[in-house]
Amino acid sequence: MIAIGIDIGGTSIKYAAVDSTGKVFDKEVQEIISGESQEVTIKKLINNIKDYISKYNLSDKVSGIGLGIPGSIDTNEGVVTYSNNLNWKELHVVDLFKKEISLPVKITNDANAAALGEKVFGAGKKYKDVVMITLGTGVGSGIIIDGKIYEGLKGKGAEIGHSTLVVNGLDCTCGRKGCFEMYASATALIRQTKEAMDLDKASLMWEEFKQQGKVSGRTAFNASKKGDETAIKVVDNYVMYLSEGLLNICNIFRPECIVLSGGIANQGDYLLDKVKAYCKKYDYGYPNSPVTEIKVAEIGYDSGIIGAACLILNL
Amino acid sequence: MIAIGIDIGGTSIKYAAVDSTGKVFDKEVQEIISGESQEVTIKKLINNIKDYISKYNLSDKVSGIGLGIPGSIDTNEGVVTYSNNLNWKELHVVDLFKKEISLPVKITNDANAAALGEKVFGAGKKYKDVVMITLGTGVGSGIIIDGKIYEGLKGKGAEIGHSTLVVNGLDCTCGRKGCFEMYASATALIRQTKEAMDLDKASLMWEEFKQQGKVSGRTAFNASKKGDETAIKVVDNYVMYLSEGLLNICNIFRPECIVLSGGIANQGDYLLDKVKAYCKKYDYGYPNSPVTEIKVAEIGYDSGIIGAACLILNL
Repeated sequence: MIAIGIDIGGTSIKYAAVDSTGKVFDKEVQEIISGESQEVTIKKLINNIKDYISKYNLSDKVSGIGLGIPGSIDTNEGVVTYSNNLNWKELHVVDLFKKEISLPVKITNDANAAALGEKVFGAGKKYKDVVMITLGTGVGSGIIIDGKIYEGLKGKGAEIGHSTLVVNGLDCTCGRKGCFEMYASATALIRQTKEAMDLDKASLMWEEFKQQGKVSGRTAFNASKKGDETAIKVVDNYVMYLSEGLLNICNIFRPECIVLSGGIANQGDYLLDKVKAYCKKYDYGYPNSPVTEIKVAEIGYDSGIIGAACLILNL
Repeated sequence: MIAIGIDIGGTSIKYAAVDSTGKVFDKEVQEIISGESQEVTIKKLINNIKDYISKYNLSDKVSGIGLGIPGSIDTNEGVVTYSNNLNWKELHVVDLFKKEISLPVKITNDANAAALGEKVFGAGKKYKDVVMITLGTGVGSGIIIDGKIYEGLKGKGAEIGHSTLVVNGLDCTCGRKGCFEMYASATALIRQTKEAMDLDKASLMWEEFKQQGKVSGRTAFNASKKGDETAIKVVDNYVMYLSEGLLNICNIFRPECIVLSGGIANQGDYLLDKVKAYCKKYDYGYPNSPVTEIKVAEIGYDSGIIGAACLILNL
């Protein structure tokens, strides 16, 4: 069985055929021209997908088309309600596709698609209930319950990054204060790193800064691995906030598995060991309470395409 | 269709036949004798249920037995892993029942049972995704997704009361700090009321205290309705914490409905109007974002029996 997976990002769209083993074939890319209207972008995409199906002789083989799209998605209606990244609004993606291509078409939020991909082919593949947390510019999340994406009313749930961790804490872009993502995103770590660097001009983080040319999500981690005390404090403080958010997920969902993705998750075991130690210390419950596995994502660059295809592959 | 619903509390067990319209018949009560072993209590209960079925000639009519039990419940195995209130541990409730009564037997946590009852026959009956929050000694919660109880790994999820609302906040009994229940339970409101009374000896809350003979979850509400400024501040502060927790539920689940129960929910619209105003102001999303309904529970005293019976009635 083959499906077409489409991963829409802020500046480009990647798409490919994906089979039921998760293998990705003949990936292609459509650049999104800056200032292009949503109607033009989607028309180009539909034409590209038609060309792709015909070029690779897939018309008899493809079971459907899945799309992962950043923003607020009404899955049932097949509509992108609003996408800040793309500047899309009330775009009836599924209807537009179906007018031109007679195949099943499904859409979901990009974080949900990535979570589904990890659940089917990645770190979550042994489990039914999986929560994926992406530590990037913000804190994205996808919730898989009983093997299926949980989206909430009109697809507006699964915004775990916008749960308050600190009442009356830092101002968040969403209008609330103290959201999880204000403390646990890569952006937050960079802010925390800069604040600590300002207070300790002798920190090895300044060396890292010079080498990298900027302060990044790796600056504090790199310096902490070299024993820099200030960097160790930055990392420990970041791990505390991240772990508090993950413990909330444990207590609310007690999923079988939490998958971490995004740049910071590339710290792998160095991060995981610290997070697991914190979570073990404060985990709710009684002796022998079942432990939610915390893992890093296993699917890399193609997770969006694979996850989108999984909407169709029904694995 | 008829099921037997059993509601196990800390000091007594209520049970009755419940039909598929939610009607409760011939309720009976078993007192739990202080110091009684778990084996004795459950043996008495099984005998009582056998007697009940025979007394009311129900053996041909009952489809099964459902139990709601406070504590940590492994639903799949039918085992009470641990119940602090009852001092029960590793009690194989379903097996013990099945040895004596040849009917389907299902158990769940009492908060889950109450949530299911409200979803089937109460405030949540129009909806598929419902979260119920009980504002009592602690903050209990039950999560209904797609019409079914969501329990998490080994029934250890749905502890929304133990999600951190204030990192490094007040010490919680669970070992963490700043849990939702430390700010939004009836216990928390009473603590907040006492703190405010200590600082304002002229507050009308002192009159309420004299009339009631104690400080309760109603003290600040009653005085605030009479215009007492200090009481109004207590209520507003409590509403802020409660609403922050409810907004987290909105952003994480975006359920169709949140149902509030417990003594404080008896404030009805006086509480709801304030909570809804707060939530509207800080709700995530874009214009026309779908709004989670916030309601108070509609089933009163029998909600535990009805919810437990719903485990069997499959409505």
